[in-house]
Amino acid sequence: MTLSGPERDAVAARIAALVAQPSVSADPAFAEGMEGARRLLEARLAELGFGGARRLDGGGHAALYSERLAAPGRPTLLVYGHYDVQPPDPLELWRSPPFEATVRDGRLYGRGASDDKGPTVVALEALARLIAEDGELPCNVKVLLEGEEETGSPSLPAILRDNAGLLACDAALSADGARWRADVASVNVAARGSGGLEFRVRTADKDLHSGRYGGAVGNALHAVSQIVAGLHDARGAVAVRGFMDGVAAPTEAERAEIAAIPFDAPAFYAAVGAPTPWGEPQWSAPERLWLRPTVEVNGLWGGYQGAGGKTVIPCEAHAKLTVRLVAGQRPAAVRAALIAHLHAACPPWARLEITDERGWSPAYALRPDHPLLLAAEDALAETAGVRPLRVRIGASLPLTGLIREALGVETVMFSFAVSDEDYHAPNEFFRLSSIDEGIAAWMALIRRVGAQSPADYRA
Amino acid sequence: MTLSGPERDAVAARIAALVAQPSVSADPAFAEGMEGARRLLEARLAELGFGGARRLDGGGHAALYSERLAAPGRPTLLVYGHYDVQPPDPLELWRSPPFEATVRDGRLYGRGASDDKGPTVVALEALARLIAEDGELPCNVKVLLEGEEETGSPSLPAILRDNAGLLACDAALSADGARWRADVASVNVAARGSGGLEFRVRTADKDLHSGRYGGAVGNALHAVSQIVAGLHDARGAVAVRGFMDGVAAPTEAERAEIAAIPFDAPAFYAAVGAPTPWGEPQWSAPERLWLRPTVEVNGLWGGYQGAGGKTVIPCEAHAKLTVRLVAGQRPAAVRAALIAHLHAACPPWARLEITDERGWSPAYALRPDHPLLLAAEDALAETAGVRPLRVRIGASLPLTGLIREALGVETVMFSFAVSDEDYHAPNEFFRLSSIDEGIAAWMALIRRVGAQSPADYRA
Repeated sequence: MTLSGPERDAVAARIAALVAQPSVSADPAFAEGMEGARRLLEARLAELGFGGARRLDGGGHAALYSERLAAPGRPTLLVYGHYDVQPPDPLELWRSPPFEATVRDGRLYGRGASDDKGPTVVALEALARLIAEDGELPCNVKVLLEGEEETGSPSLPAILRDNAGLLACDAALSADGARWRADVASVNVAARGSGGLEFRVRTADKDLHSGRYGGAVGNALHAVSQIVAGLHDARGAVAVRGFMDGVAAPTEAERAEIAAIPFDAPAFYAAVGAPTPWGEPQWSAPERLWLRPTVEVNGLWGGYQGAGGKTVIPCEAHAKLTVRLVAGQRPAAVRAALIAHLHAACPPWARLEITDERGWSPAYALRPDHPLLLAAEDALAETAGVRPLRVRIGASLPLTGLIREALGVETVMFSFAVSDEDYHAPNEFFRLSSIDEGIAAWMALIRRVGAQSPADYRA
Repeated sequence: MTLSGPERDAVAARIAALVAQPSVSADPAFAEGMEGARRLLEARLAELGFGGARRLDGGGHAALYSERLAAPGRPTLLVYGHYDVQPPDPLELWRSPPFEATVRDGRLYGRGASDDKGPTVVALEALARLIAEDGELPCNVKVLLEGEEETGSPSLPAILRDNAGLLACDAALSADGARWRADVASVNVAARGSGGLEFRVRTADKDLHSGRYGGAVGNALHAVSQIVAGLHDARGAVAVRGFMDGVAAPTEAERAEIAAIPFDAPAFYAAVGAPTPWGEPQWSAPERLWLRPTVEVNGLWGGYQGAGGKTVIPCEAHAKLTVRLVAGQRPAAVRAALIAHLHAACPPWARLEITDERGWSPAYALRPDHPLLLAAEDALAETAGVRPLRVRIGASLPLTGLIREALGVETVMFSFAVSDEDYHAPNEFFRLSSIDEGIAAWMALIRRVGAQSPADYRA
């Protein structure tokens, strides 16, 4: 399948329209953009003849739901995407406005272009072409578009639990999850879990003059630095007691499977401008990314940030932390270990308080013989002309574990984003070539599911 | 001497007018406020019949100069103050606007009210009353009002050097330096030196997704935290190699002198809300403040600071540092030791760059038998009714060391600010009662100098 130029342009325009809605779920200031994104997607689903549209409210940003169930006796797929995006900061590093999609060199730049507005539109437009070409979808399709993926899906558990009947399906097919590389066909079979929190450290009631008090009163920035520096040991391993509980060392088979995947470490580091590699030296870079958990500080601040100097002892400092979890780690236990570590690491002359939390979700792995995985591999072999590699991702898709728990089904991650597309960073982009590749693969996969039986999913 | 209510109100109004000029020397955005403050002061000096007004340019913010030399055969004093102030951040903690002087409970609140606009106005209005009451000043007075005190006086050395003839005097009398306590008469006989710099740490060319890269690429916030945490050892001592070179341990005599000064440690810590004391345990809090050098981080930031979370590995972090120096430390050597330490502490997976510097100045101590110090003690004994204590300050007045070097004269710090007036912090204030006390003491001191001879200063 090849799209004509005007057809591709029309899909790109739909992505651009969605990017133009600044749907930052983390920041209440973007409520209008969230609503704008919801309305665009609802309108398109209605145009495509999807029915039963509902907003599923779990106490935060609603998820959108719609369905087209016109293939009796065929499997039912839950197609997942998300309409929310990461904050655009730091704004000054964007070469074009983050919420104004801009095409340069075959790439569409804008916040959310790759994560996950481009891939979500690809999925919906594949459904549109199937309806246009075949008159109807070959299997039953329920669409769930989440609005809180970028904040750790805090209300998705409630949404899934409260709507388990509505969302019942044979498997989930996710438009989020990212491809390994643009030039290597692959399917994701595992993802890390995630969680996070924010804390504040205080050392006094007010900022103090560094001459009048310096040497005799604690500094909140010294305290927060000690606490953050103690999260890792000198070799880059997480130094939080209890954090690694349950983490199995990679097996030789897993290591061999990963070693077989093409990975050019020097190119990987050169592409991001890192002076040297970082992390636990006993594991290769892909092993660190896919099989090892992490703690990252995503933001850290306190004191004076303006021009010039200010001779102040800041009384307050803030840090935002996120973790990535792997198989064997229980999110609740990791959360408790991290919070206990932070309190223990806080020196006696400071006070630490947890001020905010993200959702916590476990790592995910798909069983190797799952029928939707096999269909996805066949579909990619057909459209890409080569058998895909099985890869893992270091990122997290809370949906996968949550859907397994709530609905008892597995999820195949079939996003057509590529991992190098600077999502969560300035100048996020989506390759226009992924529109053709993605729509072709999604159409081929859904047709293959149409040839399967619900019984295949109950084996 | 007692001011009438209207007289006191008139002086307070002059302070308020000066506070209303936002003269933040650190930030070029405040250039207009700097000029506004200069014009107000120049206008007042002209009203008082001072002549020879000039702006002394050292390459930064100009210092104001004016003189009234009408006492042949009497000593010449260089009266010093500064018209620049610290940045007002964090703005949200001010209970009234920082550049709108507001009187509450006998205190005038506003940025610069205490440091150093209030005390500078007190000095000028003391001169005004002497002229009004006596028809002329009893000694020769040169006035030097600096515009870069709050950024470490970077161009003051050039200004003093280039205008050594113009500024020639027998001693300097500073309206900056702060009183020990409002209820204890005291004179400052020593001050710490200061210096500072800003650095940046980079770990990649761009912010990275914590799922895609987490575990295999360094995080600039982890790097900056390691570097900052390494500036002190576990007991609070500065851990920078070479930093303490030349610092003499306090003598038993010095310790006894300091121990004799009333200092209520529990009240000191309770007043600022510090959970526990901090600092080198072998020294008392006043010793840490006056006799020991410090390194403080005044600002630290990187990554995402907005609402909610962002799963990013920040590629860049920033820190602003200042130091306080004591007798025996050479600023250039301390600066070199600090920079070498920062580079050595930067892990190999990060790059550190010094991005900005403050002026560097040595500590200062006044000889115990200096005639202006003795006159100041006598003046305070007369107006306060009790012999003043000799105290030190932990803050810095770069002027003192620079004037000694450039003009060969000593400086008496005679500010009527009080150390608890939250200068450099939100809700800075100046006690209205200091207007009366300050004008009376300055008038008494200048009259005593008028009874001295220049020969007294050449002993």
